[in-house]
Amino acid sequence: MARPPVLTPRAEDFPRWYQDVIAKAELADNGPVRGTMVIRPYGYALWERVQAEVDARIKVAGARNAYFPLFIPQSYLAREAEHVEGFSPELAVVTHAGGKQLEEPIVVRPTSETVIGEFMAKWVQSYRDLPLLLNQWANVVRWELRPRLFLRTSEFLWQEGHTAHVSQADASAYARRILFDVYASFLRDVLAVPVVVGRKTTRERFAGAANTMTCEGMMGDGKALQMATSHELGQSFARAFDIGYLSAEGSREHAWTTSWGLSTRVIGGLIMAHGDDAGLRVPPALAAVQCVVTLVKDGEGVGPAAAQLVSDLIAAGVRVELDDRVDTAYGRRAIDWELKGVPVRVEVGPRDLADGLVTVTRRIPGTKDPTPLASVAGAVVRALAEDQVALLTQAEQAREARTHEVATLGEAVEAAADGWGRIAWDLLRDGGEAELAQDAVTVRCLVRGDGSVPDAEDEPGLIAVVGRSY
Amino acid sequence: MARPPVLTPRAEDFPRWYQDVIAKAELADNGPVRGTMVIRPYGYALWERVQAEVDARIKVAGARNAYFPLFIPQSYLAREAEHVEGFSPELAVVTHAGGKQLEEPIVVRPTSETVIGEFMAKWVQSYRDLPLLLNQWANVVRWELRPRLFLRTSEFLWQEGHTAHVSQADASAYARRILFDVYASFLRDVLAVPVVVGRKTTRERFAGAANTMTCEGMMGDGKALQMATSHELGQSFARAFDIGYLSAEGSREHAWTTSWGLSTRVIGGLIMAHGDDAGLRVPPALAAVQCVVTLVKDGEGVGPAAAQLVSDLIAAGVRVELDDRVDTAYGRRAIDWELKGVPVRVEVGPRDLADGLVTVTRRIPGTKDPTPLASVAGAVVRALAEDQVALLTQAEQAREARTHEVATLGEAVEAAADGWGRIAWDLLRDGGEAELAQDAVTVRCLVRGDGSVPDAEDEPGLIAVVGRSY
Repeated sequence: MARPPVLTPRAEDFPRWYQDVIAKAELADNGPVRGTMVIRPYGYALWERVQAEVDARIKVAGARNAYFPLFIPQSYLAREAEHVEGFSPELAVVTHAGGKQLEEPIVVRPTSETVIGEFMAKWVQSYRDLPLLLNQWANVVRWELRPRLFLRTSEFLWQEGHTAHVSQADASAYARRILFDVYASFLRDVLAVPVVVGRKTTRERFAGAANTMTCEGMMGDGKALQMATSHELGQSFARAFDIGYLSAEGSREHAWTTSWGLSTRVIGGLIMAHGDDAGLRVPPALAAVQCVVTLVKDGEGVGPAAAQLVSDLIAAGVRVELDDRVDTAYGRRAIDWELKGVPVRVEVGPRDLADGLVTVTRRIPGTKDPTPLASVAGAVVRALAEDQVALLTQAEQAREARTHEVATLGEAVEAAADGWGRIAWDLLRDGGEAELAQDAVTVRCLVRGDGSVPDAEDEPGLIAVVGRSY
Repeated sequence: MARPPVLTPRAEDFPRWYQDVIAKAELADNGPVRGTMVIRPYGYALWERVQAEVDARIKVAGARNAYFPLFIPQSYLAREAEHVEGFSPELAVVTHAGGKQLEEPIVVRPTSETVIGEFMAKWVQSYRDLPLLLNQWANVVRWELRPRLFLRTSEFLWQEGHTAHVSQADASAYARRILFDVYASFLRDVLAVPVVVGRKTTRERFAGAANTMTCEGMMGDGKALQMATSHELGQSFARAFDIGYLSAEGSREHAWTTSWGLSTRVIGGLIMAHGDDAGLRVPPALAAVQCVVTLVKDGEGVGPAAAQLVSDLIAAGVRVELDDRVDTAYGRRAIDWELKGVPVRVEVGPRDLADGLVTVTRRIPGTKDPTPLASVAGAVVRALAEDQVALLTQAEQAREARTHEVATLGEAVEAAADGWGRIAWDLLRDGGEAELAQDAVTVRCLVRGDGSVPDAEDEPGLIAVVGRSY
């Protein structure tokens, strides 16, 4: 009798498969307050790796970490008209504290442009204080009516960068630097998701932004996921919060600001971009556990051989874990490591060991190779490098296969049934965009023919990438 | 004419000096909502170093990081009677979200025992699931009527560990392991604060705990600061949230839980334990910037020499920064680095450089030594090691000088005027403790004669360390 599948097959019900993976790989749970999330240790270890990789890139880009309060006076939100309109429906409001009703209600930050704007105004006096490049790692709250773990939760974790500059050109260049050198670099080189980088249409902009740029990834069901955004905010927040500076010429000017963010949503992207019917497949560059050395069962020399392999692998720079739970059946543990998507398993059993061998099992190509003990560390390092490339290549091929050049709205909707359409923006514009929206198809981003990111203003020859999305 | 002091002298007004340091060293600012705090980049970099050192020790102790929601149903708090009584006056309550009034009000977590207890109950079934060792880095909210930056803020950042065990003995041993191997180790070896480790009296216990253990540091004015606590929670939360397990013998048992935390308050402790009238003095082991290479002014070879020194220092494992802002007067920058407490400055100026020399200035002993270029990296590494020890020694001597053995309540109050008293607990007990409290003197902790941490129950020969506190 065939064993029932551990997960709902993706082809049968993709959203159900997604939930199954999260539960069975012990990534997260629903919190007691609607829409909130408990991130379990294995899921959080993935987020810690995201943080480490993204934080290092942010620091190279010159921004410094800081921390601003969770609580924002309600009046701050109201100062920028489009911003408050965009966020009002999603706010959580504190009305009582310290046993009393508050005089002014407090909102739990949905994002921090306003409170950071207030402090930028204090700290920036002269052009010498610019650019001011800040970032924070924080939790934010946006009330969700249809929550989905990692993708849309009422509280989520993210980094939000906020910068102020002397000129539009400088702000624009910095927003692009973050988009490419931090986000696209991380998403492609570490997460192995071949994102399309472009700008949003006016309809899809961040509330209060002059231009929103985005990294869009394709998921295993052909839908799009917005994985990181970088916004040019023009001078609207600088005017609302009076972030001004004295120029080198002695005139008083408003600064130009940007903001940019990447959240725990990327863990959802990781699951849906690479997962298969056996579970997660974690790119080696991201994996918190790149290799697990497992004792198949007890036996002569098994423990010491495994310990030696662990130490060889650490010496080779591999993030390794030992699984010596021999009181649990090996098959069950193997299924568990597959669910968790650990790239490489080194299986140490008494029979192979008598011949000086262990089995190196790779999650991504699905190979199993008997390997002499002395060659294991080298084989694992090679496998990790190859499988990182393989995962990106597979994702690129899947995206290419599901992306179609189209010339009519009808074709665009058809392409969006299980992938993306690419259509001339001149054929769509605001009217076409609104029409597509009736079929739940959106313009994910606008790109130039050469793949570069267009400016905020329309220009001839733009291509709209359209699809359904999370 | 003498230059006015940059800071209010400590002897004149210690609390004012503290505020001055925070403002002038650009550590933090008051947030717009009463009691909240903006942690500025230099202050946050110190916190990142705290996190790195504490997190590494927590992981060695076997706990895994996770993340639980900010929002807790109000009813959860009520399940443990002492807990809700302790925290109710400090809660911030969300009553509206997503544009509607909520059916059940939500509290913003003041600590996470309750919500984590709920999930431990789900995850723990058998004795094989224990111990369950969790930690989270998070923000928490406790409404403060008399806020003070870092020491008492309505929102603060911390780590909170939560563990469940099969037996009281196991829980007790783990709570002590955290107290010594994580907290006391970090506080003494990295923060250079020679904390006294003991247990709290019943009066000073965490709300809901069976035993609270603490690390108490002495500040520059002789007051005490509670710098980290580790709690044995007995079975009270396990009963309230039904954290049960099936024992190896097949019986159904309640688990024994612990919790333990260290917060941004330690930054306040760092300032007050080591600061002097020129500003912060950051222990080298903690410093985000251990050494700054400063260009005194432009001149032949100054830039390249400084760049070479930076790269020598990086190679020697020093956390180094370059200060090449020659358009700002050198004296002003020197004062700024002193304020920020950077342990070592390497000053590169054209005149010394012509003789192949730079000046190595040490913040802690206050020395200035002309040093040949080739010897700089070695001299800096030595200085950092020596000054780490020196700072701990100074703090130990200061604490010893201000700690007095006393035999009456009157003497205890007198000792607490500018330091600590040590008095036999048998002479105090609950009545004496209440009497001292009228003079704002509290029992900081109870210790044994041999310095070890007593159990929760009273025993003969305990010594009470008493003082005023933050």
